[in-house]
Amino acid sequence: MREMGAVAIVGAGQIGTLIGLTLVEGDPPGLTGVGLLDDREGRALAAVRRGAGNEVIADSRQVLEADTVVLAIPVGEIVGWLHTWGPLLRPQSFLMDTGSSKSVVASAICESVPTAVHAIGGHPICGNQRSGPEAAEAGSLSGSSFAITPVRADPTAELWGVELVEALRAVPIVVDPATHDRVLARTSHLLHLVSSALVELVLDQGIAPDLCRQLVGPAFRGMTRLAASDSEMVSSFLASNSAQTIAAANEFNIHLHHLAALTSEPEQLVPLLSDLAKRRAELVGQPR
Amino acid sequence: MREMGAVAIVGAGQIGTLIGLTLVEGDPPGLTGVGLLDDREGRALAAVRRGAGNEVIADSRQVLEADTVVLAIPVGEIVGWLHTWGPLLRPQSFLMDTGSSKSVVASAICESVPTAVHAIGGHPICGNQRSGPEAAEAGSLSGSSFAITPVRADPTAELWGVELVEALRAVPIVVDPATHDRVLARTSHLLHLVSSALVELVLDQGIAPDLCRQLVGPAFRGMTRLAASDSEMVSSFLASNSAQTIAAANEFNIHLHHLAALTSEPEQLVPLLSDLAKRRAELVGQPR
Repeated sequence: MREMGAVAIVGAGQIGTLIGLTLVEGDPPGLTGVGLLDDREGRALAAVRRGAGNEVIADSRQVLEADTVVLAIPVGEIVGWLHTWGPLLRPQSFLMDTGSSKSVVASAICESVPTAVHAIGGHPICGNQRSGPEAAEAGSLSGSSFAITPVRADPTAELWGVELVEALRAVPIVVDPATHDRVLARTSHLLHLVSSALVELVLDQGIAPDLCRQLVGPAFRGMTRLAASDSEMVSSFLASNSAQTIAAANEFNIHLHHLAALTSEPEQLVPLLSDLAKRRAELVGQPR
Repeated sequence: MREMGAVAIVGAGQIGTLIGLTLVEGDPPGLTGVGLLDDREGRALAAVRRGAGNEVIADSRQVLEADTVVLAIPVGEIVGWLHTWGPLLRPQSFLMDTGSSKSVVASAICESVPTAVHAIGGHPICGNQRSGPEAAEAGSLSGSSFAITPVRADPTAELWGVELVEALRAVPIVVDPATHDRVLARTSHLLHLVSSALVELVLDQGIAPDLCRQLVGPAFRGMTRLAASDSEMVSSFLASNSAQTIAAANEFNIHLHHLAALTSEPEQLVPLLSDLAKRRAELVGQPR
């Protein structure tokens, strides 16, 4: 197993803080320190104070000295960072990002990160709709899936990626970037738009907002929780997976309209919904 | 305040059991007993054993002797019950249903329940996606909205409805049946179809189910929770509010496609999502 050495985390938001917390707590072999860099005033310090690292990193040049670099910023910023700083990364260092869409990251790595750097895409499938260091919930990586998306023939990068994910107590799922983006458009990215569209639907129906407020229940609250996410972060991953998200919205519309048309024919709708409930249970791995 | 007398609850599922539990626990003035009737073998007894009443009612004729009748069966069955038994209800007794759509119930009451019976629609905006007496979570009515939908000029029915809801520690919201159905199509009924359509979307994309299973996270699990609901119950309320649900699906599609089209223009999407997040917080009354 590789010695992790000095880790630099770029971005002290929810995910960067969560990774720092989990590393510091797990203290994997050879870890010599965890530093965090964040452009936004006070965020890296807040993360260090929460125990997510031992050092605030002042600028990206210092990140280049690390043995392991983790990018935990919105996808658009990851791409920008890679083009600016990627060419300067140290040979034999390890780089992983944590963005929610992987094809654009793979392209940016291929374009700007020297092959002597072991670079790979990563995406922790966890987190909540809040943002900032305070939103990190210690332990939430434990047992969660963590996609690893190879970007070029580099078995060492894949091995180190798996080791890092296992050090975080998450479950590594190796998948190519295009397949990742296709699936995630449907299991995650589209859901943000669905949540926000449900809010618009209720607000734009011409009924007094006060009455709507009184009539919304726990189901609506739950189904629109993602609409409370950080809009910059959401827009960033949607922009980076726009074509797949639009395709997913179109496919979704076909399914929804088929189901809506069956509302007047319950004898057909009952077995279909019942079957989907069973298949959902197999998909999400638990009855609720 | 009216004496509640003998209460008969038709249907010992989640909602019937919840109402029985809350009544027995709150013991409002003049309550002389709570009986439950359920066609399905053993359900009424299971509810009584959970403390939701003191008596299993064997048949609907016995329900007619109660002072207060609460119908807690799927909407389609409520309509059938009203046509069969409504004409036989005792004058000066009180009837409320708990169905999720109210226009069809209002029509059935007007058609089949004598005006000497004080009858009104009701809809507790709470509950979870499970079914049966075990699914009732004591206390979940407390502070929840409970729609009351007058069906004809009968101030006594409205007063008694408000009193019953307050005895259940819920918050009475008086609203006409058509407005209720318009709002609930958008805050609740459509959400069930959205949840089920999301399951179909992921299963039908041609990616191995095993990989999909590994890549679904908490957001997908949460957004598809309603798809695990009892399909008979869901199909029943959807059939009874089909036109509004289809209209809601069409409107929703417009909102979703507008948002999807903006994924390639984050500078427009960011302020829109940010605004919707704020308006959602006002609508659901809490930041998360």
